[in-house]
Amino acid sequence: MSLPTAFHDIAKRVNNWGRWGESDEIGTLNLITEAKVRAAAGVVHRGRRVPLALPLHQDGIQSGLIPGRVNPLHTMVQINQELFGPGTVATSDDAVTMGLQAATHWDALPHVSHSGRIYNGRPADSITPHTRARFSGIHTVRHVVSRGVLLDVARAKGADRLPGDHAVTPEDLDEAAEFAGVRVEAGDIVLVRTGQIRLALSGDRRGYGHPSPGLSIRTPEWFHARDVAAVANDTLTFEIFPPEVADLWMPVHALHLVEMGMPQGQNWNLEELSTACAEERSHAFLLCATPEPFLGGTGGPVAPVAVL
Amino acid sequence: MSLPTAFHDIAKRVNNWGRWGESDEIGTLNLITEAKVRAAAGVVHRGRRVPLALPLHQDGIQSGLIPGRVNPLHTMVQINQELFGPGTVATSDDAVTMGLQAATHWDALPHVSHSGRIYNGRPADSITPHTRARFSGIHTVRHVVSRGVLLDVARAKGADRLPGDHAVTPEDLDEAAEFAGVRVEAGDIVLVRTGQIRLALSGDRRGYGHPSPGLSIRTPEWFHARDVAAVANDTLTFEIFPPEVADLWMPVHALHLVEMGMPQGQNWNLEELSTACAEERSHAFLLCATPEPFLGGTGGPVAPVAVL
Amino acid sequence: MSLPTAFHDIAKRVNNWGRWGESDEIGTLNLITEAKVRAAAGVVHRGRRVPLALPLHQDGIQSGLIPGRVNPLHTMVQINQELFGPGTVATSDDAVTMGLQAATHWDALPHVSHSGRIYNGRPADSITPHTRARFSGIHTVRHVVSRGVLLDVARAKGADRLPGDHAVTPEDLDEAAEFAGVRVEAGDIVLVRTGQIRLALSGDRRGYGHPSPGLSIRTPEWFHARDVAAVANDTLTFEIFPPEVADLWMPVHALHLVEMGMPQGQNWNLEELSTACAEERSHAFLLCATPEPFLGGTGGPVAPVAVL
Amino acid sequence: MSLPTAFHDIAKRVNNWGRWGESDEIGTLNLITEAKVRAAAGVVHRGRRVPLALPLHQDGIQSGLIPGRVNPLHTMVQINQELFGPGTVATSDDAVTMGLQAATHWDALPHVSHSGRIYNGRPADSITPHTRARFSGIHTVRHVVSRGVLLDVARAKGADRLPGDHAVTPEDLDEAAEFAGVRVEAGDIVLVRTGQIRLALSGDRRGYGHPSPGLSIRTPEWFHARDVAAVANDTLTFEIFPPEVADLWMPVHALHLVEMGMPQGQNWNLEELSTACAEERSHAFLLCATPEPFLGGTGGPVAPVAVL
Repeated sequence: MSLPTAFHDIAKRVNNWGRWGESDEIGTLNLITEAKVRAAAGVVHRGRRVPLALPLHQDGIQSGLIPGRVNPLHTMVQINQELFGPGTVATSDDAVTMGLQAATHWDALPHVSHSGRIYNGRPADSITPHTRARFSGIHTVRHVVSRGVLLDVARAKGADRLPGDHAVTPEDLDEAAEFAGVRVEAGDIVLVRTGQIRLALSGDRRGYGHPSPGLSIRTPEWFHARDVAAVANDTLTFEIFPPEVADLWMPVHALHLVEMGMPQGQNWNLEELSTACAEERSHAFLLCATPEPFLGGTGGPVAPVAVL
Repeated sequence: MSLPTAFHDIAKRVNNWGRWGESDEIGTLNLITEAKVRAAAGVVHRGRRVPLALPLHQDGIQSGLIPGRVNPLHTMVQINQELFGPGTVATSDDAVTMGLQAATHWDALPHVSHSGRIYNGRPADSITPHTRARFSGIHTVRHVVSRGVLLDVARAKGADRLPGDHAVTPEDLDEAAEFAGVRVEAGDIVLVRTGQIRLALSGDRRGYGHPSPGLSIRTPEWFHARDVAAVANDTLTFEIFPPEVADLWMPVHALHLVEMGMPQGQNWNLEELSTACAEERSHAFLLCATPEPFLGGTGGPVAPVAVL
Repeated sequence: MSLPTAFHDIAKRVNNWGRWGESDEIGTLNLITEAKVRAAAGVVHRGRRVPLALPLHQDGIQSGLIPGRVNPLHTMVQINQELFGPGTVATSDDAVTMGLQAATHWDALPHVSHSGRIYNGRPADSITPHTRARFSGIHTVRHVVSRGVLLDVARAKGADRLPGDHAVTPEDLDEAAEFAGVRVEAGDIVLVRTGQIRLALSGDRRGYGHPSPGLSIRTPEWFHARDVAAVANDTLTFEIFPPEVADLWMPVHALHLVEMGMPQGQNWNLEELSTACAEERSHAFLLCATPEPFLGGTGGPVAPVAVL
Repeated sequence: MSLPTAFHDIAKRVNNWGRWGESDEIGTLNLITEAKVRAAAGVVHRGRRVPLALPLHQDGIQSGLIPGRVNPLHTMVQINQELFGPGTVATSDDAVTMGLQAATHWDALPHVSHSGRIYNGRPADSITPHTRARFSGIHTVRHVVSRGVLLDVARAKGADRLPGDHAVTPEDLDEAAEFAGVRVEAGDIVLVRTGQIRLALSGDRRGYGHPSPGLSIRTPEWFHARDVAAVANDTLTFEIFPPEVADLWMPVHALHLVEMGMPQGQNWNLEELSTACAEERSHAFLLCATPEPFLGGTGGPVAPVAVL
């Protein structure tokens, strides 16, 4: 079995291999220039900060469906320990075990491979247990600061949450951009709100997982045409799941990560941001979203903050 | 044994309990107002981004000295796994076990207690294995975005690295501020560079630990007088270690975290920032430094980025 | 609220505090004498070995109900790594994160406390995050080798599995002993089979958890009268759950662990043993069941083997 | 580079591939027959039990030399938690993260590969991050109960501990067997004492690691000739380290695990056993040494007990 022609046709149109040189490891993040960052800082008009990460704890969003993607087991290794004798200053310390993709995170480019390749044509077997990702590991990202744009597809449609079988199309993105009164530009980080995470927030972890609205296979070309730097949304699967095309699983992952070299974010909580953008009448903001730099990580937890 | 009078005298002068109400959990982070954030965004003049986090991996900075503060054990749970059958899109996933304070991190306020109390007078025994920190856990921070100021004490003195027995004094901070041509103001996050982390970067983990230069017991009053929001530096111990006053262990921790309610950052890599600030002739920048929101964490990893 | 009189009455009758001295940490395991071990070795008549542990893997029996009791996350840290250069002998290594009570295990005596006390009257607060159990930690057990006796309550009743609301009574134990043709004696380790684990083996983790058949509050006196050394069974909860007496939760745990100082085993897979004992027409065997010696552990995984 | 002729010559002589069928996964453990187990039970003459496992804790024997083989991080997830309300019975629970080969353990057969093969000629790439070892994983062992024989090489030579450059030869094994007055027979598990673990017990973890006495490349033939079922010793490296033959690393591992299909044990504490055997004037005993059944594990922790 191999991927269908329909996939390969789109792949050719959005492919960025070699665009930033053969040795490039960060793909579309190259589109965040210094000028872009200056412009992003200029967007801040009130100073309102909105956090987009889910809290990290044992009772997190993972339901056991994805093997090894475990919710955080967060334990205390010391509590009020008087390390230097009775009556001295005491300290508490904690430790955690968790899947790097368990909660709010960025997928690093090598998180997905197809046909034996990762971004920029490198061999998929460059990922090993010993070295983890030898190319484009999450630590190569270094920093993610740019203009963020919220495309609030749910609110634009007057819905709290899109139905589980709703594939977010280019037309939906256009509609949301018009609703927001914003034009998506090169180097932007686009946040797509479906409202799906409301299921997780209300305790329905299974329902949150799937069926899930998410990006359509037609959207990578939309992002590619606008030179978007990265895309994140408020779902577990990122793209619509089950998929639009029978037996074509995770095509958007493959197009974004492998072909375009564009990082994806999942499980971002965009609920508070949706309200804030509506209140501020602005859907553009400074976005600080640098992942934890795990050496060779195929993903990394992130605590993103939008500054309006 | 109890803490000496010298400690309690300073404690009285810097104490912030009740200043932001009895129910406050975030202390001096209250000083980062919306106006402050707007001003911080206005500091960006080039768009240059400098990451301040150490990479996360098994061969990290912990030497085993602090029990339970383990370096990241980062493993792959899946590599190029074709979840949906042969020839389909493949995914890789990873997991980690690590001490929350093992690498670049913020101490949450309850990381330290003395005399049975944490910040705002709450009982230290509100931290339990089951709930972790019930008050002022790292997740209550929500966002850390403000103006950052680098006080490059080492460079101001023409040194790569301060000697292991150098206590950074208020006079040193004044000297570094003058060298930087910057005035520390309310809501600023101050980064104090000692150069000590060069030892860790060169592979000397034991030497990095101690003896270590660090903040003097006299500096909390300096930060308090200026209404600084948070302080971070490039050492394991934050304050000078072994301590200045015999048998008075970790007084700066106790003054900052317990009395002032001011978060502290440790193991921040300020080397690249030192060069960048010198090149840009500016020691003030926008600082994005929101920690991972572990529910009830007494500390949290952070991937800070300075934007000049 | 405190424990009812009914509980305290039984507690008085089975209490073993001081019986083996004030400094004793192992309780009824003292009943396994050298003579007992010699006799146990003498029971082996065929040399047939039956393992009683569940396999350890991510898809284990824990359903998330008990916070922190996580199924094993077992990952490879190296695969065929040629540590000494290409073409040399290669090694594979693995690591695990798991709850010590997640699968087949022994409860150590301090796993449970009531009224502020653990076994032998020691204070419950002798368990701390830093030291774990200071008394009677699982490592103090050192070795568990004795005669094992299977009381196959389910099979004696002609059932595959007892109903979820079946409290195993002293009369049930007598019936099973008669069915087995065996007399329970001092120093024996008694394995009580309910068949409940068949639910877990068939994939119904929730159903396995509860409602669950298990030991009645009346059985501790039966074990005490016979000077049994330890008891294990094939359930998650060990005792009947929900409990027989409204609002009296886990009384059997408290009687066994705190009052008698008798270790308990849970999640032991007794299915193959049930068949083997029936085939061999013998329900007594040599039992090797030494737990992993976690220093200060309040429980420990064990891979028990019955030798018939 | 490939393995030298000297290695392949021995390999041919000790190879057991196909000996127990093409589908066999447990190699020389097949030599432990029911008759052997009966005989082993018959060896017990006093009922004295000697544990052979090191305690499991953060301050264990690993020094960081072997990447990912981390000492146990053992934390409490609950302490005296009154799950069912104030005044009810309270429970304590713990969790651990550790390398499966970090302390006293058995190597499973696929722990080592050479020339792309593991035991019984299976491909080394049958070990994957997702499945771990598909063949001969530690869970396939099921039970390890047999006669154990202590070959106390150190004591036979009148030494507390062999020098770091001492390769234990067939002649040394003969000498120790004569000293013990015992004949090694088919199905025996041989424990070889070097005394090296005294370094670890005295706190010298680095010194314990290497240089280390251990088995010579000449011993696999000795074990093969006697149809030994398994061998364990009291070192980190098992075989002499650095190796006897320049650039021939870990030949004994490759011969035992890959060629013979014979499990190896490392970091077994044989000090108390050495004394006990001397006192009892018997170096043969019943050995209970079943590893924790990690599904697909390339090794497994074990808490062995010798019964004399």
